[in-house]
Amino acid sequence: MGDSSVEEIRAAIERGEWRKPTSGLAPGFTQANVVILPKKYAFDFLLFCGRNEKPCPVVDVCESGVIAPPIAGPEADIRTQIPRYRIYRHGVLEQEVEHIREHFTDDMVSFLLGCSFSFEQELLDNGIPVRHIELERNVPMYITNRECRPAGIFSGPMVVSMRPIPEALAGKAAAITAKYRKAHGAPIQIGNPEALGITDLQKVDFGDAPEIRPGEIPVFWACGVTPQMALQRARPELVITHAPGYMFITDIRNEELTVP
Amino acid sequence: MGDSSVEEIRAAIERGEWRKPTSGLAPGFTQANVVILPKKYAFDFLLFCGRNEKPCPVVDVCESGVIAPPIAGPEADIRTQIPRYRIYRHGVLEQEVEHIREHFTDDMVSFLLGCSFSFEQELLDNGIPVRHIELERNVPMYITNRECRPAGIFSGPMVVSMRPIPEALAGKAAAITAKYRKAHGAPIQIGNPEALGITDLQKVDFGDAPEIRPGEIPVFWACGVTPQMALQRARPELVITHAPGYMFITDIRNEELTVP
Repeated sequence: MGDSSVEEIRAAIERGEWRKPTSGLAPGFTQANVVILPKKYAFDFLLFCGRNEKPCPVVDVCESGVIAPPIAGPEADIRTQIPRYRIYRHGVLEQEVEHIREHFTDDMVSFLLGCSFSFEQELLDNGIPVRHIELERNVPMYITNRECRPAGIFSGPMVVSMRPIPEALAGKAAAITAKYRKAHGAPIQIGNPEALGITDLQKVDFGDAPEIRPGEIPVFWACGVTPQMALQRARPELVITHAPGYMFITDIRNEELTVP
Repeated sequence: MGDSSVEEIRAAIERGEWRKPTSGLAPGFTQANVVILPKKYAFDFLLFCGRNEKPCPVVDVCESGVIAPPIAGPEADIRTQIPRYRIYRHGVLEQEVEHIREHFTDDMVSFLLGCSFSFEQELLDNGIPVRHIELERNVPMYITNRECRPAGIFSGPMVVSMRPIPEALAGKAAAITAKYRKAHGAPIQIGNPEALGITDLQKVDFGDAPEIRPGEIPVFWACGVTPQMALQRARPELVITHAPGYMFITDIRNEELTVP
């Protein structure tokens, strides 16, 4: 799928020809986290995202019953063009499915949220190592002692991802990522895990344990698992998400997430 | 009221001791546009604001029935602490009132939107003239040929305000205001009214006609009248706003609207 356009990739996914994680597909284009829920929760969730922009950057929203994200994919179909979906009922994972045609009704509102994939290429391009990519592992993630601002039925702690960065490059990494307002932006914390209530970096809450080399310090960014925790805590009767790593590939170029 | 705190000023307004426009009160603190509407329209309106951040920067939201804006005034009362309110029914102005105790129910959601007052002081502090302040007039405003991104029942053209700026200072004015993301941000257009469909700058749609001096060019910023036009077009059965110039004074310092 190396040379395929975004539309061709999404069409291949729809035809069932791609059932693997989307990492590496359509380089340069934003991959988005997806949350789909009944309209009665949509205001609370949009407000939760607005009050917690760093962990929950809204890239696009499909109004109820709309299947094509107006900005992220005006020709796309949110019901069929993600390789794997998760269905949660009352906060509990019920099943993973390959399309959601029978679950998606006119009552469902879809949210696309930015993801740190979008800034990692620019870190690499600037000579800043991204360890979990080097090691082909998942990024280490931690639940912090910081509470999100609640909104309606949604509340919960902020979750962060961590990248070990050579101390001399941490400022540069902060400056580069700060531009990506719709992809978690600048780090939440640099160098002091305890300030976030993290006592042992080897004990991750999600993802794989890190490898921190001499001269490197831990740098923490707000993470897209944050809204997932808020959703599980709120327990709506139905929530559909992408399966972790199986993202929605948008028409949006990563640079476009550096909105002023 | 020169030395009064924000809380004292809001309390004086509540007691009926201040029924004039709020311009000049509580220097350094953000004054916000206010829109209050039934919960069933709240998602559409929040989405409209999110899709049109420059004209509609959301500073705070009170969930349904909440009278104290959690960020902008946790001790305030949105029902009584604005000197003059407007009540619209089906898009038509019905009356102006001094409090909205009997109109505000548990079903009403309140939105506070940023305003260009917040960046004008920094323009002045940097030696950039702000003509309508000099002349003690209202800022000139124009309906443009740019459509906002619609959301649910809300749609409409973008409205802009215009400030004539000496040509050599226009870049500086752009850079200063660009920081104020929650107060309309960078200009929409510099120097070319026709690009916005404005053929005669003396024919304003709102506010007072401008005085443009030799060597000055017109600089256009997105304007908070934009959401008002969308509200009037959508015609919800009830909308409450502040009366123009009679703003809600927040606990937020203007610099805080320069959120990254």
